[in-house]
Amino acid sequence: MMDFLEEPIPGVGTYDDFNTIDWVREKSRDRDRHREITNKSKESTWALIHSVSDAFSGWLLMLLIGLLSGSLAGLIDISAHWMTDLKEGICTGGIWFNHEHCCWNSQHVTFEDRDKCPEWNSWSQLIISTNEGAFAYIVNYFMYVLWALLFAFLAVSLVKVFAPYACGSGIPEIKTILSGFIIRGYLGKWTLIIKTITLVLAVSSGLSLGKEGPLVHVACCCGNILCHCFNKYRKNEAKRREVLSAAAAAGVSVAFGAPIGGVLFSLEEVSYYFPLKTLWRSFFAALVAAFTLRSINPFGNSRLVLFYVEFHTPWHLFELVPFILLGIFGGLWGALFIRTNIAWCRKRKTTQLGKYPVIEVLVITAITAILAFPNEYTRMSTSELISELFNDCGLLDSSKLCDYENRFNTSKAGELPDRPAGVGVYSAMWQLALTLILKIVITIFTFGMKIPSGLFIPSMAVGAIAGRLLGVGMEQLAYYHHDWAIFNSWCSQGADCITPGLYAMVGAAACLGGVTRMTVSLVVIMFELTGGLEYIVPLMAAAMTSKWVADALGREGIYDAHIRLNGYPFLEAKEEFAHKTLAMDVMKPRRNDPLLTVLTQDSMTVEDVETIISETTYSGFPVVVSRESQRLVGFVLRRDLIISIENARKKQDGVVSTSVIYFTEHSPPMPPYTPPTLKLRNILDLSPFTVTDLTPMEIVVDIFRKLGLRQCLVTHNGRLLGIITKKDVLKHIAQMANQDPDSILFN
Amino acid sequence: MMDFLEEPIPGVGTYDDFNTIDWVREKSRDRDRHREITNKSKESTWALIHSVSDAFSGWLLMLLIGLLSGSLAGLIDISAHWMTDLKEGICTGGIWFNHEHCCWNSQHVTFEDRDKCPEWNSWSQLIISTNEGAFAYIVNYFMYVLWALLFAFLAVSLVKVFAPYACGSGIPEIKTILSGFIIRGYLGKWTLIIKTITLVLAVSSGLSLGKEGPLVHVACCCGNILCHCFNKYRKNEAKRREVLSAAAAAGVSVAFGAPIGGVLFSLEEVSYYFPLKTLWRSFFAALVAAFTLRSINPFGNSRLVLFYVEFHTPWHLFELVPFILLGIFGGLWGALFIRTNIAWCRKRKTTQLGKYPVIEVLVITAITAILAFPNEYTRMSTSELISELFNDCGLLDSSKLCDYENRFNTSKAGELPDRPAGVGVYSAMWQLALTLILKIVITIFTFGMKIPSGLFIPSMAVGAIAGRLLGVGMEQLAYYHHDWAIFNSWCSQGADCITPGLYAMVGAAACLGGVTRMTVSLVVIMFELTGGLEYIVPLMAAAMTSKWVADALGREGIYDAHIRLNGYPFLEAKEEFAHKTLAMDVMKPRRNDPLLTVLTQDSMTVEDVETIISETTYSGFPVVVSRESQRLVGFVLRRDLIISIENARKKQDGVVSTSVIYFTEHSPPMPPYTPPTLKLRNILDLSPFTVTDLTPMEIVVDIFRKLGLRQCLVTHNGRLLGIITKKDVLKHIAQMANQDPDSILFN
Repeated sequence: MMDFLEEPIPGVGTYDDFNTIDWVREKSRDRDRHREITNKSKESTWALIHSVSDAFSGWLLMLLIGLLSGSLAGLIDISAHWMTDLKEGICTGGIWFNHEHCCWNSQHVTFEDRDKCPEWNSWSQLIISTNEGAFAYIVNYFMYVLWALLFAFLAVSLVKVFAPYACGSGIPEIKTILSGFIIRGYLGKWTLIIKTITLVLAVSSGLSLGKEGPLVHVACCCGNILCHCFNKYRKNEAKRREVLSAAAAAGVSVAFGAPIGGVLFSLEEVSYYFPLKTLWRSFFAALVAAFTLRSINPFGNSRLVLFYVEFHTPWHLFELVPFILLGIFGGLWGALFIRTNIAWCRKRKTTQLGKYPVIEVLVITAITAILAFPNEYTRMSTSELISELFNDCGLLDSSKLCDYENRFNTSKAGELPDRPAGVGVYSAMWQLALTLILKIVITIFTFGMKIPSGLFIPSMAVGAIAGRLLGVGMEQLAYYHHDWAIFNSWCSQGADCITPGLYAMVGAAACLGGVTRMTVSLVVIMFELTGGLEYIVPLMAAAMTSKWVADALGREGIYDAHIRLNGYPFLEAKEEFAHKTLAMDVMKPRRNDPLLTVLTQDSMTVEDVETIISETTYSGFPVVVSRESQRLVGFVLRRDLIISIENARKKQDGVVSTSVIYFTEHSPPMPPYTPPTLKLRNILDLSPFTVTDLTPMEIVVDIFRKLGLRQCLVTHNGRLLGIITKKDVLKHIAQMANQDPDSILFN
Repeated sequence: MMDFLEEPIPGVGTYDDFNTIDWVREKSRDRDRHREITNKSKESTWALIHSVSDAFSGWLLMLLIGLLSGSLAGLIDISAHWMTDLKEGICTGGIWFNHEHCCWNSQHVTFEDRDKCPEWNSWSQLIISTNEGAFAYIVNYFMYVLWALLFAFLAVSLVKVFAPYACGSGIPEIKTILSGFIIRGYLGKWTLIIKTITLVLAVSSGLSLGKEGPLVHVACCCGNILCHCFNKYRKNEAKRREVLSAAAAAGVSVAFGAPIGGVLFSLEEVSYYFPLKTLWRSFFAALVAAFTLRSINPFGNSRLVLFYVEFHTPWHLFELVPFILLGIFGGLWGALFIRTNIAWCRKRKTTQLGKYPVIEVLVITAITAILAFPNEYTRMSTSELISELFNDCGLLDSSKLCDYENRFNTSKAGELPDRPAGVGVYSAMWQLALTLILKIVITIFTFGMKIPSGLFIPSMAVGAIAGRLLGVGMEQLAYYHHDWAIFNSWCSQGADCITPGLYAMVGAAACLGGVTRMTVSLVVIMFELTGGLEYIVPLMAAAMTSKWVADALGREGIYDAHIRLNGYPFLEAKEEFAHKTLAMDVMKPRRNDPLLTVLTQDSMTVEDVETIISETTYSGFPVVVSRESQRLVGFVLRRDLIISIENARKKQDGVVSTSVIYFTEHSPPMPPYTPPTLKLRNILDLSPFTVTDLTPMEIVVDIFRKLGLRQCLVTHNGRLLGIITKKDVLKHIAQMANQDPDSILFN
């Protein structure tokens, strides 16, 4: 506890970069601040207004975060859409129109050929004035690859030069930051600007990546920057992390148009400390963001969600079998992806490969673009592909996937029965199978490159393709064999039994679940896309199967795997610590080490302390009554100690190297003519956490997690024996899991 | 930590009734059990199967809870519906049909008069063979009151005789139990049976109460009873509470047909310890329960939800003003209700009134029935009333509330424009205003009587009436004054601008929010009822306003107020402890008290210990190295000590009163010819929690909450100084809030 009667020394109570915050101290400081404002509010009207505005500043901040992240998401959507189309051609009616908007404004367009209009010119039309023949195809092909390479080059160069933190999805780092780690600049304004620009470029380049994960990072940057406008949040690391949790919810909310799902995602996947107050505020921020995005209306359909679907056919209990199969597929894909992607990323870290990020990005972009162009399902943007796969074939659908025979033959009012597949469907199946293979392989190499790259969309695409393939297969099976025992009870001829779009959706959920190990938030996001409770059971069956299968093959989700790969000091809150070790097995000093470095409360000089500081690198020291008794008084941080001694030497008259430092309330009795003493009780933490040496580590881990400690002192029968830091705990957990304990070091 | 090499003594590690559990110890025990099973699973196939079945037993349990609570909810719905109609008449087509079903099966019914059919006979038709005239009215009136009194009498008698715990909503008690308190029998089979039966009776009696809260209690009883089938949950109080949290979610899920809202309700309002694993399982249980209920189909409309609504008109920004007004009304009603209801309940507790629960119930029932019968809106069941208020008037609605002029005059395809109100609407308004007053007054006296009674439905009814009144008012205002500046921008003549049903819904949310102070879960439940994100903003605006207004008038929600009224030891997790006191201000012994009673580790005899046990009532004793040093070794529970000494005296040869008890690892050196010593290290908790005397109480409160402690020892400079129990913390919080600290005692 700080002594508030004395002037606080500037710098005391702040943290260095790459350090862990002390949640208890931060929260305690915020309560002190709050108490002070509340007490003052009774004194004057001005103070009362200050107190009220302080109470509402959290809500105002949420509003601003919602508005800003919603606007940025809209901007990113619109630009990415335009630039994706730029790879194929340009609108002569106004180059700022994308393909769809271009033809909306056209007079010369029929409903059948919505996307063909004279105003939209492909590159071959512009360059060689024709769109027919092999040469035009090659020109378009060449321009497609060229634009892709240009976008990718710009993206990776901007990231490399201006903001190296802008790469990747950002979720592993945000999880680490929310758990109490400090990475300065990771959520700064440069990261925000560069990430926003390069995200558009990366998505437009046609690489197998999504914008959903990075949008969470963008929203968190907004949150962090806006925190600087409010004293309450700027100065307190714990309060700021509450805001960041809400910002993450807003990010997912705009990514999918799913505010409730976003809040649950933040709660389940990202956040560490999530009090109920934050739940309510996150929900508010997520809603504001979603409605901001909707009023910008980037998809031009007044829909909040990215993939709006409306199914009408109920599902049958028997269909749970294919849904569970999709779940198994999703789990296998998740486990395979995590393993191969981590292996590849490790290779990148440890070999020469990591030194040439620009070349790597260009090579992968070139391969992706060259392989993607010939196949219409890989050429279109991945989110369009998913939309099309989720879509249930209506009467007027002109897509190849809906090219059934007897297309316009409806049985009852508006209901389309199951029909035999036409030529278009068969060729689409082949193309989708090729797309599936390409996506599976290329995503492994794409995720982790030095550009902004999200994983939600590629994972969902893999699952949606697999699901659609299975769905069409089931549909045809039911059509040709409606007399089979499994079908005849519920699927008569001429009825609409099977919805392939639903299979695509279930597959997407399964694959996303396999990779991220999300559970409730995943199902809720999908529920918000469909808006009906009907399909929750299929989604849940697939998500559960997928999680179980994936967990059986490897415990960690992709984000945790990347956290471990990068050695971030993250204490996983979900995993139980299952080993039977004791605090004495983990604490420092180890059995044969020299004794624990301690300070005594009233018998050490400035010089003694300075020697200890210079000879050790510990970030804090316990203070004891005397070396003989080892009875604990408190804990003092190295940083505070250095700042205070420096400050005292500068300002306080007469403090020299032989001055005695005391942490007691009253100065110890001194012989006459000794130099003035230095009282440092105000920087002493008088309530350090202690456990006994026989405390099981599972309890210690629990305390570290729940209270957010940095360190904990170990006593035996009332005597100080050692210290356990968060890093020791992480090392011990890694050791018990047969991992290299030294990987738990930020690098 | 128990020493697992020795045979555990039966009874050690269990709790007495009305005691608080030690979460840390329970979780530790479960981890030991889990570790043992995992280790054994490598030895034999049988053990492997046991390990797998143990892992899946949680899911199986959730499935069973979902099935059982869904079925019970369906049963309750059907019976309550039938018995409510029994008050008005009987079906000659089959007495097991309720009014609606009776007329479904009838041939003689037109669409216009859906609820009139010859098979349905009112009591006057049965008794005096006519339904016309004053006498018939009196007969019906009399029978209505008679049935109501009969049902109420049965309900209160059954509760009084068989299961006193079956009364009330049960949510305050469940909150307390989930926070770690033990109330034996509260979730037992008798409570389940009697609560199910009396809930039907209470709802049917026409009292102003709902079945939603009690359904949570019923679901929790199911959960608790089913726990007995699984070793993992039967023997561990912490694990069992995880199951109960999930059961509470299932309860709300079936009450409203809102599985996601149910899970969030459990998370936000009811639960104390809610790990992520529980989130996922709760969601599963809630879904199973909801689908079980749907397949029972008690409302006969294949809908999951109680009040299914579908609105089509968008709302306008200006309408936020009336919505916020509804929020203010909800907040005022919430604060008023809580204050008056608590005052009345306190009067019941402290005066003679509480001694005559049967008479009280009969009097209130008689008043309710007599006042209710003449007004059709009070005569119908409250949930039907809410349904009607939420309903948007369609073309074919025959209700009085939809009696607009030009009823069948549609402007565009199917859209009904705003119209002038007809005679029916005006008379409905008057009746609704009277209903509002009756509900407001009578609910205050009803909630807290010795019958099962929920609060959700009456609160929602109050809000829905107020909302509908305001909505119709707004609609007429807009119709007659569509040229006013506030209307003319968005509400042209002949357009459908205002949906009175939406106002009813917003009002219901506001009043429910004001009473319970739910936030996210409330909005999500309402969202699930409408199924559209469109109306989240109005709902949220109202819920937020309502919470702020109500919080400004009194901090506690109704459940917390009842917890405090009954003096349950519940440590609120939401409220921050804002005072600047220290652990030394709270700990026992106080400054002038005798010293803390401690045991020494190796110098006390059986007799010494027995004397201490008989002279004190403390539930545990710290063990120190010696009285002089006061260095802490561990903590031993009174119950364990008594059981162990008794056990040793019975079984172990030669343990007599002069035997030395030791808690050390090795027996202390003894002179020859002394009686055998008694080793009690196995019951010693070697890792008691300690804080220093200068620790701020806010941190201590935080530790108690987050770790679920029973007690915490206080040290000063390494010496044991005192002890803080959960009860001390609760008393201190009450004292700081200027409440009577002695109210924190279970009575």
